[in-house]
Amino acid sequence: MQSHEAALFADRYEFAMLRAYREHGLDRTAVFDLTIRSLPAQRAYLIAGGIEDVLDYLEELRFSSDLIRGLATLDVLSDDDLDWLSRLRFEGDVYAVPEGTPIFADEPLLRVEASLPVAQLVETYVINQIHLQTMLASKAARVVEAAAGRSVIDFGARRAHGTDAAMKAARTLYLVGFEATSNVLAGITYGIPTAGTMAHSYIQAHDDEPAAFRHFAATHAGTTLLVDTYDTIEGVRHVIRLAEELGTAFSVGAIRLDSGDLGAHARTARGLLDAAGLDSVRIVASGGLDEYRIAELVGAGAPIDVFGVGTAVHTSDDAPSLEAVYKLAAYDGVARSKRSENKSTLGGRKQIYRRFDDSGTAIGDTLGLESESVEGEPLLHLVMRRGQRLLPREPLHAARERTIEARSTLPASLRAIDPEVAPYRVEVSEALRTAADTTS
Amino acid sequence: MQSHEAALFADRYEFAMLRAYREHGLDRTAVFDLTIRSLPAQRAYLIAGGIEDVLDYLEELRFSSDLIRGLATLDVLSDDDLDWLSRLRFEGDVYAVPEGTPIFADEPLLRVEASLPVAQLVETYVINQIHLQTMLASKAARVVEAAAGRSVIDFGARRAHGTDAAMKAARTLYLVGFEATSNVLAGITYGIPTAGTMAHSYIQAHDDEPAAFRHFAATHAGTTLLVDTYDTIEGVRHVIRLAEELGTAFSVGAIRLDSGDLGAHARTARGLLDAAGLDSVRIVASGGLDEYRIAELVGAGAPIDVFGVGTAVHTSDDAPSLEAVYKLAAYDGVARSKRSENKSTLGGRKQIYRRFDDSGTAIGDTLGLESESVEGEPLLHLVMRRGQRLLPREPLHAARERTIEARSTLPASLRAIDPEVAPYRVEVSEALRTAADTTS
Repeated sequence: MQSHEAALFADRYEFAMLRAYREHGLDRTAVFDLTIRSLPAQRAYLIAGGIEDVLDYLEELRFSSDLIRGLATLDVLSDDDLDWLSRLRFEGDVYAVPEGTPIFADEPLLRVEASLPVAQLVETYVINQIHLQTMLASKAARVVEAAAGRSVIDFGARRAHGTDAAMKAARTLYLVGFEATSNVLAGITYGIPTAGTMAHSYIQAHDDEPAAFRHFAATHAGTTLLVDTYDTIEGVRHVIRLAEELGTAFSVGAIRLDSGDLGAHARTARGLLDAAGLDSVRIVASGGLDEYRIAELVGAGAPIDVFGVGTAVHTSDDAPSLEAVYKLAAYDGVARSKRSENKSTLGGRKQIYRRFDDSGTAIGDTLGLESESVEGEPLLHLVMRRGQRLLPREPLHAARERTIEARSTLPASLRAIDPEVAPYRVEVSEALRTAADTTS
Repeated sequence: MQSHEAALFADRYEFAMLRAYREHGLDRTAVFDLTIRSLPAQRAYLIAGGIEDVLDYLEELRFSSDLIRGLATLDVLSDDDLDWLSRLRFEGDVYAVPEGTPIFADEPLLRVEASLPVAQLVETYVINQIHLQTMLASKAARVVEAAAGRSVIDFGARRAHGTDAAMKAARTLYLVGFEATSNVLAGITYGIPTAGTMAHSYIQAHDDEPAAFRHFAATHAGTTLLVDTYDTIEGVRHVIRLAEELGTAFSVGAIRLDSGDLGAHARTARGLLDAAGLDSVRIVASGGLDEYRIAELVGAGAPIDVFGVGTAVHTSDDAPSLEAVYKLAAYDGVARSKRSENKSTLGGRKQIYRRFDDSGTAIGDTLGLESESVEGEPLLHLVMRRGQRLLPREPLHAARERTIEARSTLPASLRAIDPEVAPYRVEVSEALRTAADTTS
């Protein structure tokens, strides 16, 4: 998809509803909440993501003439609708929590207020981006926690679900605390540090491993050599022999382990390297790593300096989707609820109020009405007024610092890889319950 | 990502290796195999996908001056490399199985033969697209099988992992046998039929459900009405009352159930509709559907005509990644193997030979050398010679017919949702084993 096509990234029913709304005069202000209906069993909290991309999309929403021609072929809209769409700009208000904020089930992380046909129309794209990036941020936060201060690098582009997911993941993982990405385009696009070593094919293309190491080290000072193509420990010995051969010209920065028992290999490698006086050579580990495996390795004291993480975090493999929904909360000033079995929603213009103890640790949220007075810090802020962003896109490094800081306010028990039983407390205010109950 | 940026959608190490390859004269022809190393427990076969997009990418591979400027900032490549890249075109050969072909573990579905630095460089993008689309096709095939001839429609755009995955999924699901997509942009881009109904918000925006139904039916002849916003059976009664009210002007085509016990609701709804003489009104079911749930509903004889499937298939939720790898199989005419623990690969230029019984059912494959004579139909074909596609992109409807036909050659036991124990037999030829063993 090219970015100018984003306006058509929508379910057909959005356009079918648009026509019916317009024909029957339902064009007053609608309030839609973007929430995650429940937490997956493997998550004790979520980290909000995707908000900046949604704001970009809303600011740039246009139906150019070629998109209008495409829409006309669907036979869903009237000529009047098509004409109206060709002049459409998003002129609504948006409230959101800052990207990187910890959130919980049923808490609206984004609220769109706009004319009903327009607020409805943007649903598909808004959910798609918030869902993806919140899912990725929530998984990545666990990986960073598991690494307990050791470096984590993103190696996942190849097995992300497509290029958009890979790009957004690179940004999101960095936002949450990863140190670098292997993805060159993401590095350049978002200003993220890039990292990378070599593939097994590089070794295999040479007649033997020592020749491959010698060439690579000669080309790239400070590089990382991959040691497991044939025999991991033999590979480490080849690195040591290269150091002996090159003397002070030796500048290899690290070795990478990518298969077998990473903890055992790391210990053996560390011993051999140290015995050879190569204690400055670091150890990078990769290959099927996720937060569980990293926590095990860290817990066992494996001498690994850097974890390269790919597929597990890019696909959020233990929870590859969240129940992200975009639901009408009010229309024309009246709260609207929904009572579908196990899928009910509360109407009303909401606010999340978070309370902290004296040490700055979050101790509970109240989900209430924006208009009521509730103890706690309000998390939702007006970020777009009448289609205009109130602040420019935040620099990524600043958002990253803020995100890491925000996560540190969560209780340690919640941040644990296997969180302890008591979940975070989110109450619904009496006023919100009452407002929601009075409708439909 | 914009399409002209695809050349930079690559891991940093591809460029690091490129520099080292060029500096040390490793620029002879390399052969890379794209394979799925093993099948997830939940899959008895895979369906190859993503090949057409890879061929597009290779044909269009260019490093425009803005991309070169971006690359220069990484400090990985020499000025000479950057100059060389600015003139680079992909001039290699590509072999592939036809998109939609059933394949098994370790069978190369794509082979790239090009100068080593170039064949290496394309790795990240090639894996990304083949992985995504093969994963999606393999999941979708199970959903189509489970539906046992009933219609299946793609509703997944909102919870796909980003826009690229959503677009590729819409195409892939249609390729495999879905009948339509809700995604307007995908429908227009790929020529896929689009479908859609209404959201709960449409109902909620009205003061009552009957008014919402009346408006929508007036605007959209033959439409589908969503009946579960407040009470499913009451919703069905509102549809029946609308039919009584409109008489011969009533043209509603279907109702949609989206929550609760879909089988029970479908039976009750069918009874009520039939009793009211509305046997032409079909029943669409959606909400958390996957192949397991669909098989249950079909098995229980639930009167559901159309299944709307979203998150489960778009995220391949029970197997959200495959072990897709791109491995050097030969360099400069010599087979290359790899012996990493549990991650070994066989060198050599390979071919997949598939045998069929008299009824046309596939009974086993041999993975052999392209140069040997083995019983069975060879599945890999030359599709690109010296950077030029040999055939234009196949029309999607033709590819769809071929894909459905190809799947029908698999034994029914393999296509079952819970496949029976005996897996499909894939043998490695003696000649391939020998060729692979003679190298490093």
